Amino acid sequence: MTYEDDSLMLHTDLYQVNMAETYWRDGKANKKAVFELYFRKLPFDNGYAVFAGLERVLDFLENFGFTDSDLTYLKEIGGYEDDFLEYLRNMKFSGTIRSMKEGEVVFANEPLIRVEAPLAEAQLIETPLLNIVNYQTLIATKAARIKHVIGDSVVMEFGTRRAHEMDAAIWGTRAAYIGGFSATSNVRAGKLFGIPIAGTHAHSMVQAYRSDYVAFKKYASTHYDCVFLVDTYDTLRSGVPNAIKVAKEFGDKINFRGIRLDSGDMAYLSKKARKMLDEAGFHDAQIIASNDLDEYTILNLQAQGAKIDIYGIGTKLITAYDQAALGGVYKLVSIEENGEMVDTIKISANPEKVTTPGSKRVYRIINNENKHSEGDYIALDHERPQDEERLKMFHPVHTYISKFVTNFTAKDLHVDVVVNGEIKYQSPGLDEIQNYASENLKLLWEEYKRTMKPEEYPVDLSELCWENKMERIKEIKVKVKEMNGKS
Amino acid sequence: MTYEDDSLMLHTDLYQVNMAETYWRDGKANKKAVFELYFRKLPFDNGYAVFAGLERVLDFLENFGFTDSDLTYLKEIGGYEDDFLEYLRNMKFSGTIRSMKEGEVVFANEPLIRVEAPLAEAQLIETPLLNIVNYQTLIATKAARIKHVIGDSVVMEFGTRRAHEMDAAIWGTRAAYIGGFSATSNVRAGKLFGIPIAGTHAHSMVQAYRSDYVAFKKYASTHYDCVFLVDTYDTLRSGVPNAIKVAKEFGDKINFRGIRLDSGDMAYLSKKARKMLDEAGFHDAQIIASNDLDEYTILNLQAQGAKIDIYGIGTKLITAYDQAALGGVYKLVSIEENGEMVDTIKISANPEKVTTPGSKRVYRIINNENKHSEGDYIALDHERPQDEERLKMFHPVHTYISKFVTNFTAKDLHVDVVVNGEIKYQSPGLDEIQNYASENLKLLWEEYKRTMKPEEYPVDLSELCWENKMERIKEIKVKVKEMNGKS
Repeated sequence: MTYEDDSLMLHTDLYQVNMAETYWRDGKANKKAVFELYFRKLPFDNGYAVFAGLERVLDFLENFGFTDSDLTYLKEIGGYEDDFLEYLRNMKFSGTIRSMKEGEVVFANEPLIRVEAPLAEAQLIETPLLNIVNYQTLIATKAARIKHVIGDSVVMEFGTRRAHEMDAAIWGTRAAYIGGFSATSNVRAGKLFGIPIAGTHAHSMVQAYRSDYVAFKKYASTHYDCVFLVDTYDTLRSGVPNAIKVAKEFGDKINFRGIRLDSGDMAYLSKKARKMLDEAGFHDAQIIASNDLDEYTILNLQAQGAKIDIYGIGTKLITAYDQAALGGVYKLVSIEENGEMVDTIKISANPEKVTTPGSKRVYRIINNENKHSEGDYIALDHERPQDEERLKMFHPVHTYISKFVTNFTAKDLHVDVVVNGEIKYQSPGLDEIQNYASENLKLLWEEYKRTMKPEEYPVDLSELCWENKMERIKEIKVKVKEMNGKS
Repeated sequence: MTYEDDSLMLHTDLYQVNMAETYWRDGKANKKAVFELYFRKLPFDNGYAVFAGLERVLDFLENFGFTDSDLTYLKEIGGYEDDFLEYLRNMKFSGTIRSMKEGEVVFANEPLIRVEAPLAEAQLIETPLLNIVNYQTLIATKAARIKHVIGDSVVMEFGTRRAHEMDAAIWGTRAAYIGGFSATSNVRAGKLFGIPIAGTHAHSMVQAYRSDYVAFKKYASTHYDCVFLVDTYDTLRSGVPNAIKVAKEFGDKINFRGIRLDSGDMAYLSKKARKMLDEAGFHDAQIIASNDLDEYTILNLQAQGAKIDIYGIGTKLITAYDQAALGGVYKLVSIEENGEMVDTIKISANPEKVTTPGSKRVYRIINNENKHSEGDYIALDHERPQDEERLKMFHPVHTYISKFVTNFTAKDLHVDVVVNGEIKYQSPGLDEIQNYASENLKLLWEEYKRTMKPEEYPVDLSELCWENKMERIKEIKVKVKEMNGKS
């Protein structure tokens, strides 16, 4: 490596630094700006997403600041004057951030994180925030999908070897825990986050002893809790019978928890194995399955009556294999101009890329009678839907779709996590976050949680918010026309 | 976090630790074992892969060793006796590793890394090695595919915000550089690896000044090299004309490198923009395109005559979106038993999961006349195909497909990177690695490099290697039968 890896401050796109330079020289670096982080489309065609990444974001902000080696590097590549580098050296994060809590159930086009900060500072943190939140939210959501089909059964994360490098393995398994997973095979994730860890032995141990029987016996001689992996040579003719044989031989000396299947037809093998275990009297021994499983295969295996008690999920979870990216963006919605805040917009030939101007809040509109959510309501910062008797909710594109809601609670989904540069939020424990996610999912009607083709959950704009957007669009259109008339 | 993140030693699956315990108590921990790391199927239906990850693997091995906090954690979770923890505390890596060089062109079922080490040590490093090599090789391969369709044009990596957490962003962009990319937007990757960095400004800057014209002017006043992003409001009616206007106004005071398109129809917009730039006399101004591009879209845009000079690739590269995992595995092929090495095998109901026993080498068989590769040849460690006059090469599954090769060079693709625990290999500079990849790709006939439906490159086993595999399969079958007869 050219320099020591002593800072994450340059873990950003170069254009952020170049824009900071323009802003600083133009006297605009300290103008107050409001950016919102959101995604435009739910991943996996799912009906909801589970927000994750806040802890790591706060870690990053706590260590905000350019190190000597960062500045030496910037100087070395050339193009930056010393006065600008000095400005960077003294830069601290001084903004205010509101954010969803980890484990929050979230939807497309909702500000997950809202950053109000001096323009240059807000810009510099864009890339790391997106890098963190996009991945962790993607995995928490995938995990929740998998947990949803599994129900009360146990599901464990086994994906480190297929994760996208090391950070993904540990932060991914943390996100999976938030989404409802129970344990991980990654010992470091256990050490860092307190996640329960799980694992007994691999095929290589059976190969090393060149015998299922010998390997299981050796393992049982050295460990109390035993799960035997039975598919190294022949699942039904060697693996399962030898597991049973060793379990019988050791009796109470071990806790024979069960067997693991890692290849072959899981429906057929699990049913046969279950029968063999039951006939041998091991009714409590569980069958663990792991072999490129995801929510679709699991649904299908369940439909075929597979006898699987515990699922180990690797590749398909940790890489979010069927949709490996969440397209979260971070958009400027308001900026200080001549001492006043002015709302901004980005127009696009791709209509879904048009932004919604103005600093906003997100409310979950919960029906006080049935305790289910009627939808989410995005309003401008100063609006107070919780004070309304009767709230009009309408689709932000197909505006004729509308309803009036009464007898509701409007829950502000954001919390202040950073105030004027100071971190004000302490992440709760992981179990509490996991529980928060699961409680919040209960607010949703079942139709929004269907694995395939869920109903679309309403995420509406307030009338003021919608009108503000339409006005900004009109404004830009006039400007572009004027510009064109002139040129 | 529960513990400080001071070590990667526990970045492994729990079963590795549990197997180590069994081996140690059974006196088997120091038996010599040979593991091979390989993948079973080329990613993206590509005709080849580009190996990457070795530098990070050697970093990991250099820091091999349990820290106090690792041991405290293992003690805390319970189940491990002090004597075993003491054994772990004193463990050093003492093995010997042969590996492909980074940038090597590699294929399915070839040992990319071969580890000969005491069984427990070899086992403990499995997970991190796979985690590193699977991801980095996947991305280097994806990058090479994209570079192949782009030819001599320049391609830059812009994916940090969509990468799977931070490590993936920086190691992924390094892998992309190996595969032929020219630059990255990630400043930290520039700092750590010396990769050229690139980037000017975002949509937010145009929004902050609420005008293309003002924003471009401000940027030009503060930077010499200028690329203007033209699609914030209206590409052809505002973005491009304002870029031209500012370029004209600033003349020689800036280096107007060109414009960037980030949304809309790239074929249509690039042709129109090219015409506008040319008419304004900016024939050297380049058009940069970035909007969820991958090798397929690029091929299609090229077919439509899009006028794109430089490509910025984000999501589709850094997440390997169309196939987000390389299924690399790490298998025991030989183990010491009573002082002798015995070859081992894993059988499976999924035939592609059957391993090839024995410690092996991989040779590239290069035709001395046409300087192209005839295929790869996997032989047992003691074989010396380079001494043969006439080499029989045959398909390891469809054995009737065979040929004899003469007048060839058999190049051993492995280098000794670690010998008896000491790191003996110094990674060359990234440019040299990139060059090595590109030179090696020239050895391949074009049919193996086609983007879609490439011809299958021959990866053959030596006769001895093939016979050894058949014998081990037979042996296991007899064993399973005996076992079944008995039970």
